[in-house]
Amino acid sequence: MVANVLEIDAERLWESLERSAEIGRFREVGLRRLALSAEDKDMRDLFVQWARGAGCNVEIDRLGNIFARRAGSDPSLPPVAIGSHLDTQICGGRYDGILGVLCGLEVVRTLNDRGLATKRGIEVICWTNEEGARFSPPMMGSMAFARVLPLEGVLATTDEGGITVEQALDQIGYAGPAAVGERKFDCYLELHIEQAPVLDREGCDVGIVVGGYRTRALRLTVNGDTGHAGGTPMAMRRNALVGAGYVIAAVNDIGLAYAADEGRTTTTRIESFPNLPGTYAEQVKLTIDFRHIDPARFEAMRREIDAAIAAAARKANVEIEVAEGWSWGSELFAPECIDLLKATARELGLPYREMRSQAGHDAYAVATVAPTAMIFTPCIEGISHNVKEAIELGRSVPGANLLLNAAVARANR
Amino acid sequence: MVANVLEIDAERLWESLERSAEIGRFREVGLRRLALSAEDKDMRDLFVQWARGAGCNVEIDRLGNIFARRAGSDPSLPPVAIGSHLDTQICGGRYDGILGVLCGLEVVRTLNDRGLATKRGIEVICWTNEEGARFSPPMMGSMAFARVLPLEGVLATTDEGGITVEQALDQIGYAGPAAVGERKFDCYLELHIEQAPVLDREGCDVGIVVGGYRTRALRLTVNGDTGHAGGTPMAMRRNALVGAGYVIAAVNDIGLAYAADEGRTTTTRIESFPNLPGTYAEQVKLTIDFRHIDPARFEAMRREIDAAIAAAARKANVEIEVAEGWSWGSELFAPECIDLLKATARELGLPYREMRSQAGHDAYAVATVAPTAMIFTPCIEGISHNVKEAIELGRSVPGANLLLNAAVARANR
Repeated sequence: MVANVLEIDAERLWESLERSAEIGRFREVGLRRLALSAEDKDMRDLFVQWARGAGCNVEIDRLGNIFARRAGSDPSLPPVAIGSHLDTQICGGRYDGILGVLCGLEVVRTLNDRGLATKRGIEVICWTNEEGARFSPPMMGSMAFARVLPLEGVLATTDEGGITVEQALDQIGYAGPAAVGERKFDCYLELHIEQAPVLDREGCDVGIVVGGYRTRALRLTVNGDTGHAGGTPMAMRRNALVGAGYVIAAVNDIGLAYAADEGRTTTTRIESFPNLPGTYAEQVKLTIDFRHIDPARFEAMRREIDAAIAAAARKANVEIEVAEGWSWGSELFAPECIDLLKATARELGLPYREMRSQAGHDAYAVATVAPTAMIFTPCIEGISHNVKEAIELGRSVPGANLLLNAAVARANR
Repeated sequence: MVANVLEIDAERLWESLERSAEIGRFREVGLRRLALSAEDKDMRDLFVQWARGAGCNVEIDRLGNIFARRAGSDPSLPPVAIGSHLDTQICGGRYDGILGVLCGLEVVRTLNDRGLATKRGIEVICWTNEEGARFSPPMMGSMAFARVLPLEGVLATTDEGGITVEQALDQIGYAGPAAVGERKFDCYLELHIEQAPVLDREGCDVGIVVGGYRTRALRLTVNGDTGHAGGTPMAMRRNALVGAGYVIAAVNDIGLAYAADEGRTTTTRIESFPNLPGTYAEQVKLTIDFRHIDPARFEAMRREIDAAIAAAARKANVEIEVAEGWSWGSELFAPECIDLLKATARELGLPYREMRSQAGHDAYAVATVAPTAMIFTPCIEGISHNVKEAIELGRSVPGANLLLNAAVARANR
């Protein structure tokens, strides 16, 4: 390694992760820390306390996005931003999002340890509601920041209990005074666990994310007609749940057929009405998504899925409306930021792998307003959105050091 | 027809049905009158008012079952009971259950018109919560009466809002003083719309029900593991919703394969957890049922369904627990009562068809404590558990007259 290489304090990073893992502990080893919940408030309070303790100036916007800035020597320049999220899934793990925010904090603390100033400031960001587990859609804070989503609609979004985002922000005291989206970044860097098993299986510790999988969600509404489970002859039935069942089976079969070359299909949320024994369903809502690394294969999957939906509708004698859900393409990130990460990794002597993200991240939204790139670190067996999500500290530190050195290089530009 | 044949007042019956159709009107032509709701209370109040107006003594038991008795000349003899239910499905029709109770009332009113006494009393019964749309299981009142279900468990059953049957009874003032199950009947007769299209298609107005379809519900719990919709390779996934989807598709295929010889399969209620986009399901609960008129074919269906569940579990890499749900056999009713109905129909010159019920009814439970039989009347195209459920009055009157004359014959025995 060259002389001016910086290294984070791995033990301190681990302690921070362990402290976080106490707030919203779920099923012993996991976390349930839903966006804007009491647990989320406690974690935000701790993060703000830590950031202020590290000398940062903390600003909070109307949507609860937290910006903790370590000042640069030239305050006129926009800062290098490092962010991710502190909320989790309902049955979530300890590292998804959290590792990225706490590595950002660790960058600041390391610079403090060394007494190093940077020309541009370093701004550590916690985005509100990345997971979408309580309020839909996911990546809400970063998307509103990037004006991909309108702020008023986001504030009016309700959870299952009818509480709006605006009310939930007020309840935990995180509706801040800063306007949403009124900040400039020199660039945005996000470190995240991979949430897929590629790095873990290959024994590689650093992924430099050059883009995403082509991804598309479809929101299906299956319209049938309700009737008696006993007396209605099979030929007369228009059971919406049967239509959904044929779709689920066929869409999974398509995913299996494309699995060898990195295709994925998922059926996730289902709602059926009237959802009673003795009576079959008149309407079912079903969310599916599909992803592929290769845009041409992605389009082929789409054609197969459309055909499968049409076949399911015919067979079940129902109508299926298809609304396009979230979507992202494969080219997301700024070449200048990707090149910075690659050059820094080479300087540090860190083996890395270029890869594409299979999951969505706050970085996707921020990339529309600032030059952006992402670093992936391994998670064991790729398990994520599950309490068994796990990392090895020693395999996370190389990515954290890459983040640190790349951020400092960019901040001194 | 012979001289002593009685006929109901069809116009009055229709007026009663129309009055009922105003209480809980739903989607213009249907009813939503859930058990023990405010609408159910209003309908009960009207029925009690009508019954008292017709000179009946009304008793209500602890579970809200209503017994309206027109006294016989020998009060020491148990009465002939005629019953059904006044509650409906969530998207229910105007006739399911209701026609049976109001035909019972019409029997009493017709006897009053003619000034006719009977040796045994005639008791018109409204059973609580036949539909199971708010509180599960269905046929709750009659099953508790027959001690097929324990009373304490029934009273403690909750709806989705956590309200118990006991609380709901108190709220509408229908927790009566009579003990549940402490009544004797000479016999029990129930008239009901067929809820299947056989009578309508054949142009036959009277079905004499000699038994039921063999019927079995299965309550499946699909256990997988939650994970990320994007990053998890297809081969690693244990998406419980995919397991349920394969079951739904295969069980429907089995129903289609047995449709030609009167088989039915239905998938009805589904619940998925955590049921969020972005994350696939760790657990799905699914209710299925299957029915066949032929016990041997029923057993064959069961074997195919068991094999399909096992295959779905293997393919989706999940475990599926199967709990036995409700069940009834094919031989339910008393030959003496079936013979009475046949003999009376012949006397009245009414063409009839022997048939088996595809749906469950209160009569199934009562049959375990008293000699029982059922009369079916046509419903248009067999549509039921649907707001479009419809009857023709002229095709309902023959069944009502059969009920009247059979009840009187039995009451004068």
